[in-house]
Amino acid sequence: MNIEVYKEVFLAHLSMKVKAKEPKKLYEPIHYILNLRGKRIRPVLMLLSCDLFGGNYKDALDASLAIEMFHNFSLVHDDIMDHAPLRRGKLTVHEKWDLNTGILSGDAMLVLANQLFESYDAQTYKRLMKLFNETALMVCEGQQLDIDFETRNDVSLEDYIKMTSYKTAVLVAASLKMGAIIAGEFEDDAQKIYNYGLNLGIAFQLQDDYLDVFAEEDFGKQKAGDIIENKKTWMYLKALSLSDNNDKNSLLDLYKNKNKNKVIKVIGLFEKYRIPQLIKMEIDVYINKAFKNSNDLSINETGKKMLLDFGFNLMQRKI
Amino acid sequence: MNIEVYKEVFLAHLSMKVKAKEPKKLYEPIHYILNLRGKRIRPVLMLLSCDLFGGNYKDALDASLAIEMFHNFSLVHDDIMDHAPLRRGKLTVHEKWDLNTGILSGDAMLVLANQLFESYDAQTYKRLMKLFNETALMVCEGQQLDIDFETRNDVSLEDYIKMTSYKTAVLVAASLKMGAIIAGEFEDDAQKIYNYGLNLGIAFQLQDDYLDVFAEEDFGKQKAGDIIENKKTWMYLKALSLSDNNDKNSLLDLYKNKNKNKVIKVIGLFEKYRIPQLIKMEIDVYINKAFKNSNDLSINETGKKMLLDFGFNLMQRKI
Repeated sequence: MNIEVYKEVFLAHLSMKVKAKEPKKLYEPIHYILNLRGKRIRPVLMLLSCDLFGGNYKDALDASLAIEMFHNFSLVHDDIMDHAPLRRGKLTVHEKWDLNTGILSGDAMLVLANQLFESYDAQTYKRLMKLFNETALMVCEGQQLDIDFETRNDVSLEDYIKMTSYKTAVLVAASLKMGAIIAGEFEDDAQKIYNYGLNLGIAFQLQDDYLDVFAEEDFGKQKAGDIIENKKTWMYLKALSLSDNNDKNSLLDLYKNKNKNKVIKVIGLFEKYRIPQLIKMEIDVYINKAFKNSNDLSINETGKKMLLDFGFNLMQRKI
Repeated sequence: MNIEVYKEVFLAHLSMKVKAKEPKKLYEPIHYILNLRGKRIRPVLMLLSCDLFGGNYKDALDASLAIEMFHNFSLVHDDIMDHAPLRRGKLTVHEKWDLNTGILSGDAMLVLANQLFESYDAQTYKRLMKLFNETALMVCEGQQLDIDFETRNDVSLEDYIKMTSYKTAVLVAASLKMGAIIAGEFEDDAQKIYNYGLNLGIAFQLQDDYLDVFAEEDFGKQKAGDIIENKKTWMYLKALSLSDNNDKNSLLDLYKNKNKNKVIKVIGLFEKYRIPQLIKMEIDVYINKAFKNSNDLSINETGKKMLLDFGFNLMQRKI
């Protein structure tokens, strides 16, 4: 069990299975987005999970590629909806090509993701597909909630956690559960490792929101893009809930335009209400839940330590 | 076996299964597009096919709804790509709502289509899904070819038939084959009824192109939209291939702008080269192939007559 090996084997599988074929304008963008440097968290977690439950991790390669394909489909379409110019430091598909290419290549990726599961026997196939479809629908609902939040004035912190669970964490969770299913584990442990992934995914996304504003390094995205785009993130919602009337009105006003100059003022308000510290505490809540989930698994201690280390390294951005 | 009954039972199934739930902005457009008056050709053909091969047509309801869901997904996304304002005489989803709603509701429809197959036992499920995924990918490729044709100057009539087969006919063909699969027919006959659907679908699409320009009634779309949008249809390609140099240059020139005034000139050239008559002959070629496919089936004569009548009525736009 070695994360680096999983990633390497996964990348070899990806490069074998994803070729730029005809019609070129449909498949080249798929090849492009899938070959941008990425952390490959979901596939790696699936291979690890399959291994942890006594399966052969190579049996999970097709499903892990399916999940990575689906994840990239959602990135391509979300980048259109969010008007994002960059992804992992490179042009997004709709910027490099055009809107129609982004829509259609994305659609094809969703179909290709489905197709990749076909290598499993009928029973496993159906188990995986049910989980996949359920998850995919939640991802769509999460994206819709995210869009709805832009015009809603009554978004609660709870709503935000639901949105981010659906939009991001369920796919991490499903990846882990699929690894378990492929290894032949359908019972309690499959659900527990799902929950581990869900909590880890929420923690990761909260940290992503934190880093969007407070990161010192460049992660290849527009700096403080969430503030510029008036995203109602956990930090913004928490700040609103703690502000006095004056600051609350300032925040509401600042979130009415997309002017880059406001970033420094918003950060000032976040810091005044100790939001960076509070979000770190919230992240710890979810990390601890995840570690409790992994500790409850009926796998050996080495396996548990793998999950712990993975979570730790992920949050330290060492992965 | 009665087409009207199939349609009625299908519509009841649709209204039972497709509800506008939360988040509203995701599901309302799905409800809207699926409830626009449509011919329901694909689901009706699937139910008929299931019946013809001795199955209970009600067993095909979920799969037929899946196909109708997929078909409508492709309409929603294609209408964005084609800048179409109207669909069946009503506003398209991206016009009634917005671009993002069109993209995301479409995505959710593709997932929902997949999910609808889950009611079948694992073996049947996998058979249906493999056919579905293969077909869905062809539909994406067909749409890409259609887009590529806009900027290509070397499109042949053969290319056009391939594009239209992928974009439209394969889904009709797959619907019929799915009906056969659900009835328990996996051999020669399943392929023959697929071919019947393929040829019927090509004939139907060629006629659709004809009616786009020459229909006397209003079909709820922009009149001669294909000419205005410079679509390289069979009629245009045939006209190009038959024109003298002068007319060829005129046609090429006319297909350089999207001015509505050019329609009458293009129609004049089409008529000069007897394109309306030639496309009708081409349609007959495919209709006759379809009827040969249906005649080769090992089903009873009543069944064969049903397929013949369906094709005839479809082409007369009585369905």
